[in-house]
Amino acid sequence: MLNTEGTERKTWRIEAFSDAVLAIAITLPVLDLRLPESGSISLSAQYAALRSQYIAYAIGFVVIGVYWAYSHFSGKLWRKTDHGFNLLTLLFLSAVSVTPFPARPFVEHVGDPLNAHTAATVYAWVLATPAVVWTLRWFYGVRRGLLDPRLSGEFVRNTGLKYGATALVALTGALVTTWLDWRVGLGLVALVTFVYLLPPMTPTFKPGQEPRSDIEEADETE
Amino acid sequence: MLNTEGTERKTWRIEAFSDAVLAIAITLPVLDLRLPESGSISLSAQYAALRSQYIAYAIGFVVIGVYWAYSHFSGKLWRKTDHGFNLLTLLFLSAVSVTPFPARPFVEHVGDPLNAHTAATVYAWVLATPAVVWTLRWFYGVRRGLLDPRLSGEFVRNTGLKYGATALVALTGALVTTWLDWRVGLGLVALVTFVYLLPPMTPTFKPGQEPRSDIEEADETE
Amino acid sequence: MLNTEGTERKTWRIEAFSDAVLAIAITLPVLDLRLPESGSISLSAQYAALRSQYIAYAIGFVVIGVYWAYSHFSGKLWRKTDHGFNLLTLLFLSAVSVTPFPARPFVEHVGDPLNAHTAATVYAWVLATPAVVWTLRWFYGVRRGLLDPRLSGEFVRNTGLKYGATALVALTGALVTTWLDWRVGLGLVALVTFVYLLPPMTPTFKPGQEPRSDIEEADETE
Amino acid sequence: MLNTEGTERKTWRIEAFSDAVLAIAITLPVLDLRLPESGSISLSAQYAALRSQYIAYAIGFVVIGVYWAYSHFSGKLWRKTDHGFNLLTLLFLSAVSVTPFPARPFVEHVGDPLNAHTAATVYAWVLATPAVVWTLRWFYGVRRGLLDPRLSGEFVRNTGLKYGATALVALTGALVTTWLDWRVGLGLVALVTFVYLLPPMTPTFKPGQEPRSDIEEADETE
Repeated sequence: MLNTEGTERKTWRIEAFSDAVLAIAITLPVLDLRLPESGSISLSAQYAALRSQYIAYAIGFVVIGVYWAYSHFSGKLWRKTDHGFNLLTLLFLSAVSVTPFPARPFVEHVGDPLNAHTAATVYAWVLATPAVVWTLRWFYGVRRGLLDPRLSGEFVRNTGLKYGATALVALTGALVTTWLDWRVGLGLVALVTFVYLLPPMTPTFKPGQEPRSDIEEADETE
Repeated sequence: MLNTEGTERKTWRIEAFSDAVLAIAITLPVLDLRLPESGSISLSAQYAALRSQYIAYAIGFVVIGVYWAYSHFSGKLWRKTDHGFNLLTLLFLSAVSVTPFPARPFVEHVGDPLNAHTAATVYAWVLATPAVVWTLRWFYGVRRGLLDPRLSGEFVRNTGLKYGATALVALTGALVTTWLDWRVGLGLVALVTFVYLLPPMTPTFKPGQEPRSDIEEADETE
Repeated sequence: MLNTEGTERKTWRIEAFSDAVLAIAITLPVLDLRLPESGSISLSAQYAALRSQYIAYAIGFVVIGVYWAYSHFSGKLWRKTDHGFNLLTLLFLSAVSVTPFPARPFVEHVGDPLNAHTAATVYAWVLATPAVVWTLRWFYGVRRGLLDPRLSGEFVRNTGLKYGATALVALTGALVTTWLDWRVGLGLVALVTFVYLLPPMTPTFKPGQEPRSDIEEADETE
Repeated sequence: MLNTEGTERKTWRIEAFSDAVLAIAITLPVLDLRLPESGSISLSAQYAALRSQYIAYAIGFVVIGVYWAYSHFSGKLWRKTDHGFNLLTLLFLSAVSVTPFPARPFVEHVGDPLNAHTAATVYAWVLATPAVVWTLRWFYGVRRGLLDPRLSGEFVRNTGLKYGATALVALTGALVTTWLDWRVGLGLVALVTFVYLLPPMTPTFKPGQEPRSDIEEADETE
């Protein structure tokens, strides 16, 4: 295995970079909300024609927003990063950045029997990918010892189980969408997103190693 | 109510993420200022044709800029954030990001009797939404104990009153625009924006708990 | 005069926000470098047709880059920020964000006797505006006591003179472009940009108040 | 030589600005993944037509991602920055921001005997440029004493050799692409990118001056 020790750093910069990429990815789809210039039809008809764009924008915002909220939380858990973790983070970010784009074709074709299956299949795989990469990154980080060493084994195991199950359900959803029934399949993928809207598990620590919370720490250095 | 304690963190990262989203949202509309390639008419005619884009860009910049200045200030008041506060912040950011786009249709149709009412109505609601979400987020944060606990009850009450009144005027403005007179209604919404151009209230603290200002604190750690 | 004391904060967040806006403004013009899809003509002809885009991109990058380098430096000088300083910073950022867009029309029309004057006039004013706002912000900050109080009066005076002179030359350049000769006028504006490519003056301090440089300070807290 | 001492600062802000520009440059190409609106052909045909966009997006992401990972690592090595280093960083960022755009024409024309050479030549030069600027910036920084002074002479020499060799191979690749065989030439340039996917060398320090790692340092200040 490659020696990545020389590339270890604290996580603030990878957190900041992730935040910047997610901030851009979450904001860029607003460009689709621009009214095209077309003087002939009435303005209310033009606004109404953008309806599927609005829905797609809202869905896309929720998906990236949920991933941001989770990566905001998980920033508490990692003690350091290395070259491989950086590359997996980049892969995760590229997968998340793509999520808004199949939303509009899906919203537009959801009632169209010829293309609904194609639209749903593309969307299901695009939504499942970041869930899988997120989980891969978790296990890579755990194996390379990048986690806060004071976290309890139980918390680390449970979080791994949760992320693993999430990735499995997302993949299953994508497969079901492709081969069986896109309504059920995409429902499974949507369930994963909904689960992430709930707050994550509270970290627990090895006995006697409970850190002061970063809030108390920061208050004390004030 | 869901337990969100495990997701509490200091606010620096949510401030940085908000800044990034607002920075992108405030800058993206410059793309509308690009001159379309159209060789046949003279350059000055082309520039003149972009006039409503310039005005729309300027208005959009003021609106987002004002929200940034307020969120810059409010960063002083919050001691921590949790999962629900993160989600409300995301909702606020998505609402603000949309604000520049109905500006151009409004500027273009302001003198057009057929479409002025539609253009004004869309714009009024889009402008009123972030004011409402901002206020919701304030009350959520106060209820969950996320504020700096040293702030005086009076300051917290007055700020809540101000934000509540602002949201109410913005909503009223949107309703008046829709059902009564768009000039009056949009005037009310514009008034809210103008109020936010004024500096916010100076925070007051519980007796004996006045913090050194963050400026003095930072100077001392130098 | 309005009381803005309650809005004073250290400058890190306004620096980060400025950096984000400038980073976006400097990067967005790359979108113009995308090759349009047009299968009929050869690829080298297509690339050649983008020539004025490349030049415009390069000029735009230099202009924003220079402003970033200066705002990077000036971050050392300010001790704090307030609501008015924030608003002036926003105005400055919006003025800088617009600078890349008149570059392409100028490059395209520079040899076209009918439109060269229009293209040069728009570009000269767009380039002169941020220089003027930058200078206004400087004098506002000095008057409100936002500078590091240890800076020597001589340094503050000289910097003010330099910024004032720069704004004056830029304005003169824009006026000459409009009314006399666009080559001379735009040359004056370009000179201002070139002057900013040179490193800024080294700050001097009141006797006995020389701070350790922020580099030494940071080294010591390591 | 110009006196740039007055512009020296710690590197956090240049790191943050670089991260922001790279975050935007890596995310903007997602705009090309948007499905064009064209109701007549089936959705799967539309998605299939975007195939070269997907490949180009993936390649572009890898290229910028690799540069980000390296600039993330190199942030450990620099102790400070000055005006010239800032300008070279800007040049590097502008060169990297351009890299995604010749990817799509290359993917589209790779099998087209008339245009493959043009597409490959443009891409090779665009990919070689940031490698060269990166190396120039390294030697400038070393000469101006901006590196962490505790780094061992051996590590500084070896890193300089590695960067110099990389730039040379990239330039050779671009020349071979232009004058000899684009497959061999672009292969050389791709090799450089692949080498950067491997973790960088672990820094070594002068005897007795080994710093605690920034991870331990940060842990201790907790």
